[in-house]
Amino acid sequence: MKKSFAVFGLGRFGESVVRTLAAAHQDVLAVDIKEEPVNELMEVATQTMIADTRDEEVLHDLNVDTFDYVIIGIGNNMEASILTTMLSKEQGAKKVIAKAETSDQGRVLERVGADQVIFPERDMGQGIVRKLLSNHILSFIDLSDEYTLAAIEITDPNFVNQNLIDLNIRQRFGLTVIAIKHGKDINVSPKPTDMMALHDVVTVVGPIKSVNALDEALKK
Amino acid sequence: MKKSFAVFGLGRFGESVVRTLAAAHQDVLAVDIKEEPVNELMEVATQTMIADTRDEEVLHDLNVDTFDYVIIGIGNNMEASILTTMLSKEQGAKKVIAKAETSDQGRVLERVGADQVIFPERDMGQGIVRKLLSNHILSFIDLSDEYTLAAIEITDPNFVNQNLIDLNIRQRFGLTVIAIKHGKDINVSPKPTDMMALHDVVTVVGPIKSVNALDEALKK
Amino acid sequence: MKKSFAVFGLGRFGESVVRTLAAAHQDVLAVDIKEEPVNELMEVATQTMIADTRDEEVLHDLNVDTFDYVIIGIGNNMEASILTTMLSKEQGAKKVIAKAETSDQGRVLERVGADQVIFPERDMGQGIVRKLLSNHILSFIDLSDEYTLAAIEITDPNFVNQNLIDLNIRQRFGLTVIAIKHGKDINVSPKPTDMMALHDVVTVVGPIKSVNALDEALKK
Amino acid sequence: MKKSFAVFGLGRFGESVVRTLAAAHQDVLAVDIKEEPVNELMEVATQTMIADTRDEEVLHDLNVDTFDYVIIGIGNNMEASILTTMLSKEQGAKKVIAKAETSDQGRVLERVGADQVIFPERDMGQGIVRKLLSNHILSFIDLSDEYTLAAIEITDPNFVNQNLIDLNIRQRFGLTVIAIKHGKDINVSPKPTDMMALHDVVTVVGPIKSVNALDEALKK
Amino acid sequence: MKKSFAVFGLGRFGESVVRTLAAAHQDVLAVDIKEEPVNELMEVATQTMIADTRDEEVLHDLNVDTFDYVIIGIGNNMEASILTTMLSKEQGAKKVIAKAETSDQGRVLERVGADQVIFPERDMGQGIVRKLLSNHILSFIDLSDEYTLAAIEITDPNFVNQNLIDLNIRQRFGLTVIAIKHGKDINVSPKPTDMMALHDVVTVVGPIKSVNALDEALKK
Amino acid sequence: MKKSFAVFGLGRFGESVVRTLAAAHQDVLAVDIKEEPVNELMEVATQTMIADTRDEEVLHDLNVDTFDYVIIGIGNNMEASILTTMLSKEQGAKKVIAKAETSDQGRVLERVGADQVIFPERDMGQGIVRKLLSNHILSFIDLSDEYTLAAIEITDPNFVNQNLIDLNIRQRFGLTVIAIKHGKDINVSPKPTDMMALHDVVTVVGPIKSVNALDEALKK
Amino acid sequence: MKKSFAVFGLGRFGESVVRTLAAAHQDVLAVDIKEEPVNELMEVATQTMIADTRDEEVLHDLNVDTFDYVIIGIGNNMEASILTTMLSKEQGAKKVIAKAETSDQGRVLERVGADQVIFPERDMGQGIVRKLLSNHILSFIDLSDEYTLAAIEITDPNFVNQNLIDLNIRQRFGLTVIAIKHGKDINVSPKPTDMMALHDVVTVVGPIKSVNALDEALKK
Amino acid sequence: MKKSFAVFGLGRFGESVVRTLAAAHQDVLAVDIKEEPVNELMEVATQTMIADTRDEEVLHDLNVDTFDYVIIGIGNNMEASILTTMLSKEQGAKKVIAKAETSDQGRVLERVGADQVIFPERDMGQGIVRKLLSNHILSFIDLSDEYTLAAIEITDPNFVNQNLIDLNIRQRFGLTVIAIKHGKDINVSPKPTDMMALHDVVTVVGPIKSVNALDEALKK
Repeated sequence: MKKSFAVFGLGRFGESVVRTLAAAHQDVLAVDIKEEPVNELMEVATQTMIADTRDEEVLHDLNVDTFDYVIIGIGNNMEASILTTMLSKEQGAKKVIAKAETSDQGRVLERVGADQVIFPERDMGQGIVRKLLSNHILSFIDLSDEYTLAAIEITDPNFVNQNLIDLNIRQRFGLTVIAIKHGKDINVSPKPTDMMALHDVVTVVGPIKSVNALDEALKK
Repeated sequence: MKKSFAVFGLGRFGESVVRTLAAAHQDVLAVDIKEEPVNELMEVATQTMIADTRDEEVLHDLNVDTFDYVIIGIGNNMEASILTTMLSKEQGAKKVIAKAETSDQGRVLERVGADQVIFPERDMGQGIVRKLLSNHILSFIDLSDEYTLAAIEITDPNFVNQNLIDLNIRQRFGLTVIAIKHGKDINVSPKPTDMMALHDVVTVVGPIKSVNALDEALKK
Repeated sequence: MKKSFAVFGLGRFGESVVRTLAAAHQDVLAVDIKEEPVNELMEVATQTMIADTRDEEVLHDLNVDTFDYVIIGIGNNMEASILTTMLSKEQGAKKVIAKAETSDQGRVLERVGADQVIFPERDMGQGIVRKLLSNHILSFIDLSDEYTLAAIEITDPNFVNQNLIDLNIRQRFGLTVIAIKHGKDINVSPKPTDMMALHDVVTVVGPIKSVNALDEALKK
Repeated sequence: MKKSFAVFGLGRFGESVVRTLAAAHQDVLAVDIKEEPVNELMEVATQTMIADTRDEEVLHDLNVDTFDYVIIGIGNNMEASILTTMLSKEQGAKKVIAKAETSDQGRVLERVGADQVIFPERDMGQGIVRKLLSNHILSFIDLSDEYTLAAIEITDPNFVNQNLIDLNIRQRFGLTVIAIKHGKDINVSPKPTDMMALHDVVTVVGPIKSVNALDEALKK
Repeated sequence: MKKSFAVFGLGRFGESVVRTLAAAHQDVLAVDIKEEPVNELMEVATQTMIADTRDEEVLHDLNVDTFDYVIIGIGNNMEASILTTMLSKEQGAKKVIAKAETSDQGRVLERVGADQVIFPERDMGQGIVRKLLSNHILSFIDLSDEYTLAAIEITDPNFVNQNLIDLNIRQRFGLTVIAIKHGKDINVSPKPTDMMALHDVVTVVGPIKSVNALDEALKK
Repeated sequence: MKKSFAVFGLGRFGESVVRTLAAAHQDVLAVDIKEEPVNELMEVATQTMIADTRDEEVLHDLNVDTFDYVIIGIGNNMEASILTTMLSKEQGAKKVIAKAETSDQGRVLERVGADQVIFPERDMGQGIVRKLLSNHILSFIDLSDEYTLAAIEITDPNFVNQNLIDLNIRQRFGLTVIAIKHGKDINVSPKPTDMMALHDVVTVVGPIKSVNALDEALKK
Repeated sequence: MKKSFAVFGLGRFGESVVRTLAAAHQDVLAVDIKEEPVNELMEVATQTMIADTRDEEVLHDLNVDTFDYVIIGIGNNMEASILTTMLSKEQGAKKVIAKAETSDQGRVLERVGADQVIFPERDMGQGIVRKLLSNHILSFIDLSDEYTLAAIEITDPNFVNQNLIDLNIRQRFGLTVIAIKHGKDINVSPKPTDMMALHDVVTVVGPIKSVNALDEALKK
Repeated sequence: MKKSFAVFGLGRFGESVVRTLAAAHQDVLAVDIKEEPVNELMEVATQTMIADTRDEEVLHDLNVDTFDYVIIGIGNNMEASILTTMLSKEQGAKKVIAKAETSDQGRVLERVGADQVIFPERDMGQGIVRKLLSNHILSFIDLSDEYTLAAIEITDPNFVNQNLIDLNIRQRFGLTVIAIKHGKDINVSPKPTDMMALHDVVTVVGPIKSVNALDEALKK
């Protein structure tokens, strides 16, 4: 089911949102106060407009209340992001997601009505660090504060050419192996006798501490 | 095992990297050309310095070759990010991760030696869209181009108070249920008779198309 | 009983607030981010400080929660006025009065916690017009939407050298005369036989429409 | 009887003057050197013009001598406010009211011919302080240096459910009660047996010192 | 008899005034708001000061009322020249001579108290033209609207080697010859038989029209 | 006989030159790089043009070699005044008169070909001082380094109601009286018995020192 | 055989390249982001264009891959010179010659694909010094690290009116005389009996040290 | 014999001059108005100074008349380069070499006294083109308008493994072979039987047209 999106502010973040939405065949209105970024997206977005979203008449004319989501990517002009957020909500916007640069700005945006505030630079900083600190963990889903699902790459020769029985991951680390990826093949119901090859990716579920212990063990 | 990090450029992204590393008890040197962001992190980073990283003598004096990772967060000054990247590699930096704003800048950074280039604003734009487009999918790990692991929230009353046999997720969608989160409890070996409650989070593994089908089905 | 005041932003408005408070022997802390306006008020305010009130640590150190009133005169820097207002309330300020330039800014200030918002330029514009439009009405207190108390100057020769019986203000205009000012003397219990002189000021109470009718009548 | 007004300079103050005049159905010409504020008032003012009022030919063409009042709201450009004031008077303007930011500017404006000089920011600063210092006095008219008329709100439980005889305001404070407002009703000829309710507004006339004494007494 | 001078504003004009006064051994106080022009004149003026003359306390401390002349050379900052002029007169300056760039500025300066207003660029423009238009007239003193004294150079061979009788200047042109300059020698009581040489300078007195006629005649 | 003039640079000085030439019915071409000053003189000058005189083709097209005088009033842009001067001479300008602000600039202008360099601000500074220092000398013509012609006002009561014999100016001061102006009347052949009245203006010729002695004597 | 050239960036260097190529009757496309320098060369270059060469579509439309040489004269905007260089090579440019200001910039340009990097200001600095240090050596070609060909001017009277036998240059200095220039005549096969005149230019071949020795000898 | 140099203006060109002179062990004084470029050369130049060379006292104190050469590298500030050149010559500088950006600037510099004017960007533009247009000519010395000495690389297989008799360069092209460079060996007295190898460099003397003909022939 298609949703409709309005994106206000077409900097790096807003442009990326518009392009990703367009690639997913969604309806998207792209708006900026400057001509250049609007022109850039003219053939990408469903509709584009050069407009000053700090003006409530502009927002009214854009029918800001008819979109499923209003995404406000105006980040480096704090005043504009605040006014656009407040006026969009006053004009009946259903769900406003606004980008912030600082936590202070984030709190102001919430006070004036933002339904969700996101911090791209801060979050990416955190994300890149988590990846650097865990070389073998390619990605993960935290199921709770204690349990996680993690995809781990096998680079340790000691783990190669052994089956799950040999490795005894459940007993040594308290983790359950859910899937093994070998090249482009995925084995989602691994058997105890399945062998590991170099660069196989093993998906495990279990306590975060155990996953970190496995990650550390693989470094040896 | 601790690693050592040097972070050059302490804007929103660089600051976030330093704070996350410090919270993970890593050694981190934080450098910027301006005094204010350096002062801000003086009690957070292991070491801080006000310095112009476009100068190769500066990089030499910082022993840029001794760090496990050099993270270059200088994004909005393209010239400085390029020179810092090139000179860091020339001075023997082991692994340089540089932030880019545009794909052109990204290609230049690779040409002058960056081992990895990241695009925070672009990636966050993509991330936020994926989340908006799949309301019930809280997070996911793509195991391959076809298979994925996804955490899905149950909001559809038709799925509530039924067990896995009733729901028959494997047959209807081709997905295997790996875990069920109920409040703060995680059940990592779900039995066919386990019941679903409203807002339970179910982790499934299977084809991406099947996950999307389940996500759509839940919208009814 | 003395109250305590903190005034943030020492432009024309803030400076005037500080000087009036000081003349009324009140305790007042005067703060600005620039040195010059602070120096100007050093011998006027009880205490002065050069500080950036957009920083919550600064507000904490100023004990912003201990003042009876925090008056934020930062008007032309919308971002600073918003942050200072929000952070002051977060730090426990009892009553925050903030100056706004536009109604949009006013609404944002209320959303982030301002207890009262004032618009000096707009209000003065309204005030000057009311005075220009009613030459004989020197000042007034609106008791309700219909009733008002007004001080009216007698410039019409037809009203001079007549007593209240002659003028019959109550019957002709539906107004009660409460006081008559003659030079520096005030007669707060006027008798029906009291005479009017040129430039006497008569205070009347009654319907707004009646006051305007008297004002018009005096123009003849 | 309608008067005619020319307003030069359409900042916050000038715009407010124009809007208030228009709301009172007065003829008003609105002039600014910039296009935007003129457009903003195009449907509010009787007539609008983009013009540089520092040019005497412009003032001549505007027939500056035909208006009852010329209100000069150009405040932050001292040079322009001085020239416009001088040239308007030289061109025969009847009454020129000019806005000033500092007392120095005010004196220059008087020297070059301004009939009246007003200081919005300074006056609003004084006004807000008077209100803050007297919580129960909602508004007042100073009849002389010693006598005043004041509207006071009753918030003190000791004053509630008592009549004017009980309260004995005349003897205790030397004040005459002129009117009592109860909700939306105004009683302009209060009797000694009229009772006071919480939040009633009492209008009194008498010495300023006595009014302040009553205000203080109400705080207990 | 020495006079005392204060010069405010040390641009080209003010600097020239200070240097000429110093060369004439007069007491002169040189003041500017910037450091550099003050330093330049430190060994030229009797006294120098870096000060902002828009501040009445500054003018008071400079004892502006004790100088015979206050010369205000602040030309390109109209606001500063107006305030300095007004405040100097308010502080009791005896005679204020102020430089203006435009006639509007000149009128404002007179309104705020300048005793004399001068226009260097305008006056020099007029002076240079008068010289260019009358090649043989080296300089002149207008005695009245009709009579002038003029020094005229003889470049016309027809006038050379003739005496005053031959030339008959009085009859042909209605002019009296007062002096003849030959090389470095001045003859202030010329006789009718005195001869003219090439490049002699003749001083004549008579009607302006006659002087112009002689000037034109010499062109032949 | 008319001459032709080109004036490049229409600031205060250039504008004054153009206006004075036009008033004297001379042909004058007025040129500036900016539109506004050119428009201002469109109905004053014989011809006007917006052009960049730093371009030799422009000068060629203006037929800079056909004018009797080229007056370069570009003063505050040293580079432009130098290039315009050099290129005008290279293009065959007959006589170039250029305005300078500093003596360094003056020397450069001479080196690149200026026939005459003038310094308005400096010369006016000198002129105003000479007038201030000699109150009774209204104007003067220096005939040589030693002799001068001066017009002196009589303000000293001791000189009033005396004839030239009484005053004995020749013997006391070594000066010859050439003319006496009384009101609007000029007496160009004064007799020894002519009487002096208050505010008469006496024109004398003689040594500079003697004129200064008379000026000083008049102060008593 | 004609070659084709594209010159990007038309500052002093780029303009000179275009003019020299045009004078040599080569096909040259001249491109700049600004209008003015493009207009300047419109009648000089084969083709001109106003375009932003940081945009790969622009480069594609210019058919950057069809030129024999792309010369990038964008020097003071490092970012633009880097992007233009990289994108030109990516678009298939055969040979890219880029101008650099610093050696750091030069290294970046090589990394992103420049085939040749030149440093005009640095090289001219070196060139001027070599000429100043060897007054008699007018120019030279270094054949190897040891051998050189040099054109040397004879200014030493001791060398004048002597033939090659007398001077014995080969034996005294180890140099072979290849040519002697006398006025406009060139003698490319000098005989031992040819005489030297003052200011003749002798071309010699031999060791660099020997050439310097001759140069020094001539100074005596 | 050492010479002494003063270099004013330490941009790319000036810096290069200073470094080349220092490498040649010459005495060099390096001066700039800014601190940074002076610090950069502090250990390179014999002496450095931060000074404003537009001030004649500064030049006097630097003993500008004692240097063999004054090299003025101030290029992008035309006014400063003109004044420094003029004042240096006025202060007795022996030989002033000044850098220019445009030919207009060059002519001004000569007028104010520059002994030599150089144009780095323009000359490098010309130089690079000459090299590009003649692929085989590595360098050359123009002996006259018609004759040249040129070093030409042999890349044409038809010329390889042939001796000078075979190639018959003198008859086919009218050129004399002066030297043949083979690898690092130089043969400065080539015999007719000497063979050519690929990439040998042949130095020839003869008419420019003939050299170009040989260059073209080699392209086949």
